[in-house]
Amino acid sequence: MRIVRYEDMRGNVRYGREDPPGVVEELEGDPFSGLSPTFRTADVLRFLAPVEPVNIFCVGLNYRAHAQETGLPIPEDPVLFMKPTTAVVGPDQPIRIPACCEHGPEVDYEGELAVVIGRKARDVPEERALDFVLGYTVANDVSARRWQKHNGGQWIRGKSFDTFCPLGPALVTRDDIPDPQALRIRTALNGELVQDGGTDDMIFPVARLVSFLSRDTTLLPGTVILTGTPPGVGFARNPPVFLRPGDLVSVEIEGIGRLTNRVTGPDGA
Amino acid sequence: MRIVRYEDMRGNVRYGREDPPGVVEELEGDPFSGLSPTFRTADVLRFLAPVEPVNIFCVGLNYRAHAQETGLPIPEDPVLFMKPTTAVVGPDQPIRIPACCEHGPEVDYEGELAVVIGRKARDVPEERALDFVLGYTVANDVSARRWQKHNGGQWIRGKSFDTFCPLGPALVTRDDIPDPQALRIRTALNGELVQDGGTDDMIFPVARLVSFLSRDTTLLPGTVILTGTPPGVGFARNPPVFLRPGDLVSVEIEGIGRLTNRVTGPDGA
Repeated sequence: MRIVRYEDMRGNVRYGREDPPGVVEELEGDPFSGLSPTFRTADVLRFLAPVEPVNIFCVGLNYRAHAQETGLPIPEDPVLFMKPTTAVVGPDQPIRIPACCEHGPEVDYEGELAVVIGRKARDVPEERALDFVLGYTVANDVSARRWQKHNGGQWIRGKSFDTFCPLGPALVTRDDIPDPQALRIRTALNGELVQDGGTDDMIFPVARLVSFLSRDTTLLPGTVILTGTPPGVGFARNPPVFLRPGDLVSVEIEGIGRLTNRVTGPDGA
Repeated sequence: MRIVRYEDMRGNVRYGREDPPGVVEELEGDPFSGLSPTFRTADVLRFLAPVEPVNIFCVGLNYRAHAQETGLPIPEDPVLFMKPTTAVVGPDQPIRIPACCEHGPEVDYEGELAVVIGRKARDVPEERALDFVLGYTVANDVSARRWQKHNGGQWIRGKSFDTFCPLGPALVTRDDIPDPQALRIRTALNGELVQDGGTDDMIFPVARLVSFLSRDTTLLPGTVILTGTPPGVGFARNPPVFLRPGDLVSVEIEGIGRLTNRVTGPDGA
């Protein structure tokens, strides 16, 4: 099932089911406690991120070819970091270049598969880990490279600004994605392909990530895991490419959809 | 005002006002939308963390003397990292040594002043930053040192396990703490003083931290900021000291209170 979240014409936030493409049925409830059909067509004002995360975990260097392009060693365990929930925006909402990125271009894209946890998970073995996954969506792990480095080596600062976590357009439930390690993932900048990878290149597959993250750690329903990015990020290109106001970034994952966001300057223009 | 959060005898979670010490009046509402008196004595089953954070930001190396003991340079800007909200426990709740810390002792204490944001803050100047602070509580930034290092240099993993963010015992509102840079902060391990510092040693004072964090970033009401630890942490001692099952850790901040937690092994014993 393709679940979307949207604001309706009266300003209410609702979930809907998209089937066929472009046709949305309003649903009752929420994906964590249960959804039921209404047989009403949704009156969508605008689509929102398909989930409001409770915590956002991110994994760095999880594609072999991306680890290679950064020049960093292949990690032995997943390299974890986080984003605050305030960084989330939905599809077609702007990515804003922060005013504090005034030292020159540094804001970069990272197209990623995002995993949404559906049931409380703690100490789950890898073999059962996907049972705790509600579904998948598309993410852009927007990163300010100077701040990412200029923070005592801790990446958080460069990953945490408002609008730095676009999610969407839909949450596709697990039953529709039989193998999360067999998905093509591509990013286009102004229509030009800049990332083109496959989730089969992940060093730590989704089941391993969920299991690892759940060790001694409660993953609540609504936890979102960004699973790393394939090669082709802007800072590793020759010459480097950074986002500028007016740019259009699209991340597309096979079977899930395309997440598109326009880039604005600090003033929103 | 000293605000506590507690579970009452019927299992409800409520806020209360402690005045005089040990006497709690039940309150209506919550500290973010407003509290009102009930003139009823609270029937406290157990105290909880005084806030349920929406996001937890932490600052590393924010006391000059602690930066010195770690051998790391004095940072130019605050070094930010995060903890997931699932790490929070209340006063007198156990700190559990994770099963995945099986390679030897590595779990350490860090007594810290915690700032609770009361009003949505974004791009606030340092001069007005304290206006957005609801109050202060005591935190223990529990840290598994091996995992903190063994994560591609990212500290998050070693900071994020369940029970690794004790908070409490009370939230003391800003009007009762006229100068957050004039507080003595001490940590005791099994009754022995191991940290004894003053918030006047902070490299970045609270107002600067709130202002810095709010740059291009929305701090929602309920955001918690852990402001760094004074010297005396276990790993920097000679010989090093790490937490063991049965240990009792207390962090006390002048004018706020003492946060005490017992340490258990992975099995809870």
